[in-house]
Amino acid sequence: MSLLVVGSVAFDDLETPSGRRDNILGGSASYFSLSASRFHPVQIVAVVGEDFGPEEFQVFAGRPIDLTGLVQTRGQSFHWKGSYGQDLNEARTLETHLNVFADFHPDLPEAHRNASCLFLGNIDPVLQLDVVRQMARRPRWIALDTMNFWIDGNRGALLDVLKEIDILLVNETEARALAGDRNLIKVYQRIQELGPRILVVKRGEYGVSLFSPEGCFVAPAFPLEEVADPTGAGDTFAGGFLGYLASREDLSLETLKHAALFGTIMASFTVQQFGTAGLQALTDEQLKERIAAFKAMIQITAN
Amino acid sequence: MSLLVVGSVAFDDLETPSGRRDNILGGSASYFSLSASRFHPVQIVAVVGEDFGPEEFQVFAGRPIDLTGLVQTRGQSFHWKGSYGQDLNEARTLETHLNVFADFHPDLPEAHRNASCLFLGNIDPVLQLDVVRQMARRPRWIALDTMNFWIDGNRGALLDVLKEIDILLVNETEARALAGDRNLIKVYQRIQELGPRILVVKRGEYGVSLFSPEGCFVAPAFPLEEVADPTGAGDTFAGGFLGYLASREDLSLETLKHAALFGTIMASFTVQQFGTAGLQALTDEQLKERIAAFKAMIQITAN
Repeated sequence: MSLLVVGSVAFDDLETPSGRRDNILGGSASYFSLSASRFHPVQIVAVVGEDFGPEEFQVFAGRPIDLTGLVQTRGQSFHWKGSYGQDLNEARTLETHLNVFADFHPDLPEAHRNASCLFLGNIDPVLQLDVVRQMARRPRWIALDTMNFWIDGNRGALLDVLKEIDILLVNETEARALAGDRNLIKVYQRIQELGPRILVVKRGEYGVSLFSPEGCFVAPAFPLEEVADPTGAGDTFAGGFLGYLASREDLSLETLKHAALFGTIMASFTVQQFGTAGLQALTDEQLKERIAAFKAMIQITAN
Repeated sequence: MSLLVVGSVAFDDLETPSGRRDNILGGSASYFSLSASRFHPVQIVAVVGEDFGPEEFQVFAGRPIDLTGLVQTRGQSFHWKGSYGQDLNEARTLETHLNVFADFHPDLPEAHRNASCLFLGNIDPVLQLDVVRQMARRPRWIALDTMNFWIDGNRGALLDVLKEIDILLVNETEARALAGDRNLIKVYQRIQELGPRILVVKRGEYGVSLFSPEGCFVAPAFPLEEVADPTGAGDTFAGGFLGYLASREDLSLETLKHAALFGTIMASFTVQQFGTAGLQALTDEQLKERIAAFKAMIQITAN
């Protein structure tokens, strides 16, 4: 009963108003699995190069993260270089070196084909669909992240895979581009026609809006005095959100609300430090404390 | 024990993607009082011209809105012409005719000088301070709205009046400009140094963030399928927020949360129709229903 994630494991060079870091661990599957594994066992399917060493492997050790599907191959790992200005909502890509990721064709290990829950990180929708087809049986649910590059550049393939998807997680601009409408309620109606019955719109510092057949939920981001590095916030959210869902039996609105809360809190720890450092250092005590603080912040007692 | 508002009562010409309306009732004090009077009696101090006729006065009739301080003078009323594109968060001003508002010097009627609560709508901070000085006794609290025009153009006078203020309501851009910081927690720290102990940051379709010495609260906007006209949303929020506060004894975080909820819901009715039509048509039943729906949307039951 595992949660399978297919995505990227990479190195990042990051520059933000708080400083810069080179060659630190990044990639959607890294953030996702470090976050999700707090709630449920995770299996990663991804590819890395020869530059991926013991130090990087060590980050995943001691956690319920199965690296059987993390293939190491000849060449260099995916490397992204980005910077952020004062508006931390928007990353500027300086360099993208796909390296071994350019030939990434996820080949699921036998044991992974029975995963009960599947998260398709933001990769080519053709590959995402291929992963769905490799599953031995239909997972309990499949969630997907994508980006404007695919929405604009390979819409046909994206629409094909969306038919198989239960939960779509995208940012606000992407949601609007995909649905061709600005109003989020209408965006959700359109997304439902395309396949997914649950939509999570990631809105950066404004939090997330969640739409399900039972109703909607809006959660703010956790207010922080310092945001050191917003990289990975979305994948960390997805990890907390889907990790919690994988640990539960249902997709009721109440369960989805809690999932959004855990995703939000996990993301808040990610952005407080560079790369995955915040997730690595996080203790259960800190997690519990912040969840309580966040609940108090959004709750209203009976009048 | 009244809530006094000093602001504008005006005519608006509006164009939005949903249509256009000319010569409809507008102005901060109009939206504010129609909204606040649902919760507490309101006294308006404002000026209108000879073009302000029975039809406009009629809008305020039958509600606990005291128009003793609404002075009618020779000339035309303040007239604003604005338009909105698909991004309804941003109004484009096409024309501003101050008319009688250019010579507006609020002169509080004797009875108004004992108001227990005071809202200073967005006018020249010199006039805002003058109103504070006309009060016979210190109101229980004073709230203030302002805009970039004054923050950039008359910062000195604005800082003077801020010293007298308990509750500052501004939009996100204004809050950041005033405090000289992007991070809202730091913005709040700076605002407290300037005077106000409570800060409400209006974030349009993203809702509001509220900061008080006891803690913070973030409420999303009520999701709507159609927004006809965002004009007046901020003043309507202020009306519901401060109207509710005026009806209560305390400024505890719990009370502020409820106030933010009522402000948010009132604003949602305003933006569904042009001008003040949504506020005028609103029934108690509709208000009650939407408050319940909104609470359900932001609440999370115990895990």
